[in-house]
Amino acid sequence: MEFPGQAANTTQKIILTALGGSIATPAEGITADVVVARNFEELQSLGREKVAGNIVVFLHTFDKAMAVQGRGGDAYGEAVAYRSEAPSAAARLGAVAALIRSVGSAEFRLPHTGSTNYAEDAPKIPAGAVSSEDADLVASLVPQGVVRMKLVLTPQTLPEVESYNVVGDLKGSTNPEQIVIVSGHLDSWDLGTGAIDDAAGVAVSMQVANLVKQLKLQPKRTIRVIAWMNEENGLRGGRTYAIDHAAELPNHVAAMETDGGAGHPLGINLRGKPELATVLKPVAKVLQEIGAGLLNKVDHAGADISPMEAAGVPTFSPIQDSRTYFHYHHTAADTLDKIVPRELAENAAVNAVWAYALANMEQPLPR
Amino acid sequence: MEFPGQAANTTQKIILTALGGSIATPAEGITADVVVARNFEELQSLGREKVAGNIVVFLHTFDKAMAVQGRGGDAYGEAVAYRSEAPSAAARLGAVAALIRSVGSAEFRLPHTGSTNYAEDAPKIPAGAVSSEDADLVASLVPQGVVRMKLVLTPQTLPEVESYNVVGDLKGSTNPEQIVIVSGHLDSWDLGTGAIDDAAGVAVSMQVANLVKQLKLQPKRTIRVIAWMNEENGLRGGRTYAIDHAAELPNHVAAMETDGGAGHPLGINLRGKPELATVLKPVAKVLQEIGAGLLNKVDHAGADISPMEAAGVPTFSPIQDSRTYFHYHHTAADTLDKIVPRELAENAAVNAVWAYALANMEQPLPR
Repeated sequence: MEFPGQAANTTQKIILTALGGSIATPAEGITADVVVARNFEELQSLGREKVAGNIVVFLHTFDKAMAVQGRGGDAYGEAVAYRSEAPSAAARLGAVAALIRSVGSAEFRLPHTGSTNYAEDAPKIPAGAVSSEDADLVASLVPQGVVRMKLVLTPQTLPEVESYNVVGDLKGSTNPEQIVIVSGHLDSWDLGTGAIDDAAGVAVSMQVANLVKQLKLQPKRTIRVIAWMNEENGLRGGRTYAIDHAAELPNHVAAMETDGGAGHPLGINLRGKPELATVLKPVAKVLQEIGAGLLNKVDHAGADISPMEAAGVPTFSPIQDSRTYFHYHHTAADTLDKIVPRELAENAAVNAVWAYALANMEQPLPR
Repeated sequence: MEFPGQAANTTQKIILTALGGSIATPAEGITADVVVARNFEELQSLGREKVAGNIVVFLHTFDKAMAVQGRGGDAYGEAVAYRSEAPSAAARLGAVAALIRSVGSAEFRLPHTGSTNYAEDAPKIPAGAVSSEDADLVASLVPQGVVRMKLVLTPQTLPEVESYNVVGDLKGSTNPEQIVIVSGHLDSWDLGTGAIDDAAGVAVSMQVANLVKQLKLQPKRTIRVIAWMNEENGLRGGRTYAIDHAAELPNHVAAMETDGGAGHPLGINLRGKPELATVLKPVAKVLQEIGAGLLNKVDHAGADISPMEAAGVPTFSPIQDSRTYFHYHHTAADTLDKIVPRELAENAAVNAVWAYALANMEQPLPR
């Protein structure tokens, strides 16, 4: 960045990453002045006159206080709207590129990537995320004078290739046609290695089958372990499953997904009929001993299992400690060392108890 | 890196930085097998046969438990020996490059730079630091098979240029020739912006003069504020000062330096005659009210002021909360947001109380 408005012109490199799905800048980059917007409302009040031809930096700040209190997912939900929608919102007013303050709680100059959605009614402009420190630097400089940025983003969208969900069944003894899904997703963003998002979810789901075998338990219904493909980039694994298995979904008793890392589980989120909570209370009680007895009704329990909701399949996900999850999520720091083996094992235990209980209940769940 | 020993060859990018003073690799990089050494002793036991022609990765782990207990500087002292000495130790056994596990407590995939020292009896080989996550990945892979690394380091050592210490005097009223130095250093590593290392030290030192003026105090001796040049790269500012002012050092009553960030001050480190602690107790007592009353004898109180030690100048530095300092120090995350304004002000207050007390004591300190 250059600051030609300053007494002495200075330049500063900033740390950023392209968003998933973003188009690239021309090879020589885009050089333009920077305007900042704290939120969508401020963008609108700037209007086309101030936005057109410029690079917009969105300053929405991930709510760390919320995350510290265990509501990381809620803080993420508020912030991620900017990652998804801000590039098109800026483009509608003539912006030449859009950057967002990274969606996350880390203070380690790490940009956070993730998918962005180009709307059909707006030009596609390059979209990236800058580290929180760099976003705050820009925010402090813009009121002092003209800030000019040279932006180079080099994402590539490669051709589509065939890929697969990975599915393994532990066949039920009396009702093998009735299915309980436990799952995580295989794909991850490539800044890091995807340990918490979502190798952890795949690992605990595989461990469910392993634990049931080790304990020599015999599920009456089939426990189906699924590692979903393509969660991050459009849920095509989950969507395709729901289409391919549409005829069998009435026999899908429940679907669980672990996609919040490997933090200590506090209970489960559940989506379905209000009566579910009553029916499931005895199972939750078993898990109270390890601090995982909460039952929490939610509107959506998991991304890859959400396409089954329309068919009435009750969906579940563990409630997980999210206090540090968004330090690492979608950044270069999503690596195996962030996982505490004991907590990973707790998640496997919670999934196993739920999967076995759902597979062996007298009656399928209300739906 | 490639892992040709694995069932399926895979490659993985690792995150690293060159060390300050390192030579660069050839433009095409250095491709060689990796050997790991937990410490200098393990390097020696590997011997020339296993080291020659290879890249050595040193795995010494910064002692985070020590840092959590406020002994960050001690943990740093243990670890920094590898940054300084390991490249030459590896080169003596024929290594073609050396990498160290980053010296620091962060878990955010940030490499930590800093100076390395090439010994005169060893070939100069490229030297870098890898993030702790990447070092641990290498450490876990090497026992599984051959790990081959392509290492590209592009540091440049630019020609020497003239630069200056920045010095400002608040003249003493009765003994202007007697000097009390308060100081920090101007230079910093360029991965970050140098907010904690050491803009903070410069800021609190400047604030000493400002506070004394604001409070309309009249120091009897001169309070000299110094922003040292070139601490990180050989102390040439401090060394040159000690040479240029050698004749005046008997009149330097004390020298203070703040170079540990802006964490809450707990007291002061002091280097000099054992009697100092007794003489200074009344001043320390004044600072007990803000939790900064400790007097701690040390062998060295500050890098830039250490060249004055030989002349008998008593040296001081604030004892600062170091629990998070080595998360950020010498990394891209050393930025202004890491400084808590209240704690910065506490450090200024401690420096001001000490500087004023030392400037106005009846007798110069014992030496």
